[in-house]
Amino acid sequence: MPYTELDQKAINTIRVLAVDATSKANSGHPGAPMGMAPISHVLFNKFMKFNPKNPKWINRDRFVLSNGHGCMLQYALLHLFGYDLSLDDLKAFRQLGSKTPGHPEAHDTPGIEVTTGPLGQGFANAVGLAMAEAHFAARFNKPGFELFDNYTYCFFGDGCAMEGVASEAASQAGHLQLGKLICIYDDNHISIDGSTDCAFTEDVMMRFEAYGWHTLHVENGDEDLEAMEKAIAEAKKVTNKPTVIKLTTTIGYGSKLAGTGGVHGNPLKPDDAQNVKSKFGFDPTKSFDVPQDVYEQYGQAASAGAAAEAEWNKLFEAYKKEYAAEGADLERRLANLLPEGWEKALPVYKPTDPAIASRKLSETVLTKLYDVIPELIGGSADLTASNLTRAKDATDYQPESTGLGTYAGRYVRYGVREHAMGAIMNGLAAYGGIIPFGGTFLNFVSYAAGAVRLSSVSQVRVIWVATHDSIGLGEDGPTHQPIETLAHFRALPNCMVWRPADGNEVSGCYYVCLTSKHTPSIIALSRQNLPQLEGSTIEKAIKGAYVLEEKPNADITLISTGSEVGIAVDAAKELKEKHNIIARVVSMPCWEVFDAQSKEYRLSVLPDGKPILSVEVLSTLGWERYAHESFGLNRFGASGPYKEVYDKFEFNPEGIAKRALQTIAFWKPVTPLRSPINRAFEQLI
Amino acid sequence: MPYTELDQKAINTIRVLAVDATSKANSGHPGAPMGMAPISHVLFNKFMKFNPKNPKWINRDRFVLSNGHGCMLQYALLHLFGYDLSLDDLKAFRQLGSKTPGHPEAHDTPGIEVTTGPLGQGFANAVGLAMAEAHFAARFNKPGFELFDNYTYCFFGDGCAMEGVASEAASQAGHLQLGKLICIYDDNHISIDGSTDCAFTEDVMMRFEAYGWHTLHVENGDEDLEAMEKAIAEAKKVTNKPTVIKLTTTIGYGSKLAGTGGVHGNPLKPDDAQNVKSKFGFDPTKSFDVPQDVYEQYGQAASAGAAAEAEWNKLFEAYKKEYAAEGADLERRLANLLPEGWEKALPVYKPTDPAIASRKLSETVLTKLYDVIPELIGGSADLTASNLTRAKDATDYQPESTGLGTYAGRYVRYGVREHAMGAIMNGLAAYGGIIPFGGTFLNFVSYAAGAVRLSSVSQVRVIWVATHDSIGLGEDGPTHQPIETLAHFRALPNCMVWRPADGNEVSGCYYVCLTSKHTPSIIALSRQNLPQLEGSTIEKAIKGAYVLEEKPNADITLISTGSEVGIAVDAAKELKEKHNIIARVVSMPCWEVFDAQSKEYRLSVLPDGKPILSVEVLSTLGWERYAHESFGLNRFGASGPYKEVYDKFEFNPEGIAKRALQTIAFWKPVTPLRSPINRAFEQLI
Ligand SMILES: [Ca+2]
Ligand SMILES: [Ca+2]
Repeated sequence: MPYTELDQKAINTIRVLAVDATSKANSGHPGAPMGMAPISHVLFNKFMKFNPKNPKWINRDRFVLSNGHGCMLQYALLHLFGYDLSLDDLKAFRQLGSKTPGHPEAHDTPGIEVTTGPLGQGFANAVGLAMAEAHFAARFNKPGFELFDNYTYCFFGDGCAMEGVASEAASQAGHLQLGKLICIYDDNHISIDGSTDCAFTEDVMMRFEAYGWHTLHVENGDEDLEAMEKAIAEAKKVTNKPTVIKLTTTIGYGSKLAGTGGVHGNPLKPDDAQNVKSKFGFDPTKSFDVPQDVYEQYGQAASAGAAAEAEWNKLFEAYKKEYAAEGADLERRLANLLPEGWEKALPVYKPTDPAIASRKLSETVLTKLYDVIPELIGGSADLTASNLTRAKDATDYQPESTGLGTYAGRYVRYGVREHAMGAIMNGLAAYGGIIPFGGTFLNFVSYAAGAVRLSSVSQVRVIWVATHDSIGLGEDGPTHQPIETLAHFRALPNCMVWRPADGNEVSGCYYVCLTSKHTPSIIALSRQNLPQLEGSTIEKAIKGAYVLEEKPNADITLISTGSEVGIAVDAAKELKEKHNIIARVVSMPCWEVFDAQSKEYRLSVLPDGKPILSVEVLSTLGWERYAHESFGLNRFGASGPYKEVYDKFEFNPEGIAKRALQTIAFWKPVTPLRSPINRAFEQLI
Repeated sequence: MPYTELDQKAINTIRVLAVDATSKANSGHPGAPMGMAPISHVLFNKFMKFNPKNPKWINRDRFVLSNGHGCMLQYALLHLFGYDLSLDDLKAFRQLGSKTPGHPEAHDTPGIEVTTGPLGQGFANAVGLAMAEAHFAARFNKPGFELFDNYTYCFFGDGCAMEGVASEAASQAGHLQLGKLICIYDDNHISIDGSTDCAFTEDVMMRFEAYGWHTLHVENGDEDLEAMEKAIAEAKKVTNKPTVIKLTTTIGYGSKLAGTGGVHGNPLKPDDAQNVKSKFGFDPTKSFDVPQDVYEQYGQAASAGAAAEAEWNKLFEAYKKEYAAEGADLERRLANLLPEGWEKALPVYKPTDPAIASRKLSETVLTKLYDVIPELIGGSADLTASNLTRAKDATDYQPESTGLGTYAGRYVRYGVREHAMGAIMNGLAAYGGIIPFGGTFLNFVSYAAGAVRLSSVSQVRVIWVATHDSIGLGEDGPTHQPIETLAHFRALPNCMVWRPADGNEVSGCYYVCLTSKHTPSIIALSRQNLPQLEGSTIEKAIKGAYVLEEKPNADITLISTGSEVGIAVDAAKELKEKHNIIARVVSMPCWEVFDAQSKEYRLSVLPDGKPILSVEVLSTLGWERYAHESFGLNRFGASGPYKEVYDKFEFNPEGIAKRALQTIAFWKPVTPLRSPINRAFEQLI
């Protein structure tokens, strides 16, 4: 159907809404929405499949605005299509408590798929979303039952294209041949510093071809709606490659500053705003003025989407009759419930069991859960044999043409792409029905800090299997030995940092990570063997911290994590035998989970009246929250066999005992000696 | 000259040394050294210019092993060429305290240019090194005085090629047309997970072409020394593009496991080690057995290098006569001395001066220092107008053909490439005679965490201008508002985190950052205006913390940083007026610098006997080290006008006063009430 004046009016409505909202907020980015309004109109009306009344319909097409600063574009679309986003919400753009924050946040706004804004992340999320679709299709579709066939569309700009995380994700997507991923590159030649000529002169399309993508170019992205439609249609025809469409646009189209950096990150001047409205046939004296026929046009697309969902629901009902087991499994996953009794698969250990590295204990859990929790889908950033992330019987997640696996496979080969792995996991989690995990060395989770932060902000369940978690990795030396990493992620809100000490704690840790539906986790695991502790249980571990060795009339509490707990136990023995000092020992696999326990419980673990010494072979930063004194490593480590490295830094029973004695002596005169659990006021959360 | 048997013997010596060292350590990576020995032999003997007796000669060619796990390759070379690295040092590979750690560390080993190992970093460092050469050549070379003409060579593998940081840096290098950068891609088809087929199937050479690189391929990198020599010679001929040479090699060449992942990260089995030696004509019963004629051959190259340096020194002497000013400037920079009296350019403020955002105060410092410190070379990751990093009269660092600047320019357009910016800055600093700085939002320094960590490990002076440092950025919202960032980098050893509160503190902060020759800094700066404080001076600020408002008989100490110091001052007023409570106020722009002061001074700032409340609008993690109670933000922020966001979280005089009263009441019963400066024992450093 040819495009009409109404189409143009709709496009201009989006532009004018972006002008109005940024003007009212006196803040925000009008340029990208004005430039990308035409492609959005074409994409959302001619191609995308969605139901504004149920933004969570599983087979909806996904849309990601990776250049999230242009979010007024998306807010305008959501409003016009009838999502639960009113004109008043648009008027509250960038205001406190609104549903229209300065960058899109998935849990704030219906219809926003992923939280974007930090550049490059959304693009990589889109790769994850497309991977998820391919997986569900391979796993659940049956002849006559194409339950999963949704597309993932992503807009991105020059900023995203420059970011390494997007490069990594693009390489991965090309390798994975994600035919239902269609990305639109807003080639407007402008970034914040002005023309891209000053820093970004590469041939972006050639780069994507090198990654194995299908590439297309629409030269007039401002006006040529037919060409845009044709390009998207062509993209859909290529089924074994992701497509990138380079769309040459004019940023701030319609403004006097169109095509310049001046329209990127600042509202239009009042006279320019009026000029835009006049030019587009709007009343320059009115604001937030949406023509009724535009609402109607968009309403039709919305109705078609609702009908498509209704049809899909019928299909799914029939499917459940024909494929009862698959149907039930899918229904359970979409309801975000774990399989009944899954937790029975978690291994339990006795103190007489052999010492095992916690990375190996983690492998056992992942292997035992592999058959039990089919939504567990993960891999490693090229460190499979070190991270031990692959269940023995796992099939690789690969395009069939590689001969190495299928999309139904559940072990992802992420390559040496930690940052993309993190952002892709966010996309996998956002799709629904998948619990992603990814392995690397703890030190290299930092490469993915930007993505981990967005896991936390966007409240998705993503699990990092972070092995080689300290100087205990030994010979690889300081460049690989984390020091600051635990402090970093402990300071990150809504991110659980686990450092289990033995087999039962590893099981407990996975229990909490898997059942915490809105919180990502980082599990720090040892390279070296750790003894099975007397007194550890899953039930205790899931409280975040617990008394491993309780003793009446103790002189001191030693609190420790992971590989140092066993050494702390030996230090307690040393203190008794050599100094007649009684030390309780507390194991604390996870601060954040412990913080969520009742104060009564927390005080039972860390009681008043006794000094507390923390023992952890990384930065002490923050341990003052639980301990009166802290023994840690506030310097870089050293390259050498790990036992020698531990001894060098006195992380042995003698070194701990020495500091315990100093701690007891130092705190003796203080009364009352309160537990650090007691505070003058509560933190805002 | 054709290659002889001696050349082959030398190559095999390197291979066998790598086998012996990894076998002795029972740890390490023999595969890459065995595969890359031929190209190293050609490069170091036929092309590279260096003097083992003076590894710091400024015009030496630079060599970076980005795949740093293969460091036995480099250690073997350094030893053979006569650097201060003995056979015993090789025997101590990966042992505690040795000069041959598990990954190359520049400050441990003579001849190592940059600390590598975390993948992708070295590649980006090489881009920085090449940028530095181009800058020095443009700035100092004169007709007849080609003082600077060194090349930068870099080896990298599939792992580096997959990392986003290397992608970003490659795009930047292509844009910058760095003709003296020659990178050799070890195309061995193996990464830790096995064949690159499982995750990395892109066309790497096409990608580099897209970036604007010159590309070459040597098909037989195991044996065809002539082809290698020819390729490097061709690379040198292309002067307006960096070159990447794809070198197809066999990992672990000579081993029974050659060409497999089995030889990547594990020493060879004893029988295989013997097999390798026999195959290469070495006595299988001997270890670390270097033929005398190999020493002699390499000694000749070393002598040639020493002669080249002697000639250069003569040239430089003549230069100094002809170009006295430039010569003196260069000599000063190479001696790593700042210009006499530079600090007089630092602005000083009075309390009556207007309130100014600290990012703007930083701009003033950078502008004032622009003419005074010519070695200050920096830019921003596409946020120039927000970070305010560009001195008014700056010239861009650009290839002349762009018409946008010259290599003599000192303002670098990094594009939206935070991670590469960090790693490139490490390379610029490693070259010598340059103080690099780079701007982005504080929140996005996290994208570069991997590079910042290596700045700290490798002890280079790099300055991050990190603006928009809190919820004070307002409308951009939680995805842009840092919470955990300061805690993260405070926990990182040898990294200074600054958060200055006003003009004098910004000046003091730059003073310390510029004079700390072996420590990187992150300067957190506000978007919003901050008042000039009564009582701040540069002299006080450079102590890291100081008493801004001293008061006899105070009831409490408020300690704060950056934008919250002014609010704390108002809170002290509020406490006096409304509650008759006397509060001292301490400003603490930098923890690490304060920690380095005498205990006496630290106790004078944070004395015993009074409770201390910290006030900083980010994570409280670690503040317990200085304060009895901490008021901060342990959750994500919110999108809205910044004053409303501050009020929402009670970061105003009333909110602080309320918590001060709670703190005083809570700590009243405790005696003695010690300053947290007092500790039971000292930390290991
Ligand atoms: Ca946390
Ligand atoms: Ca630090």
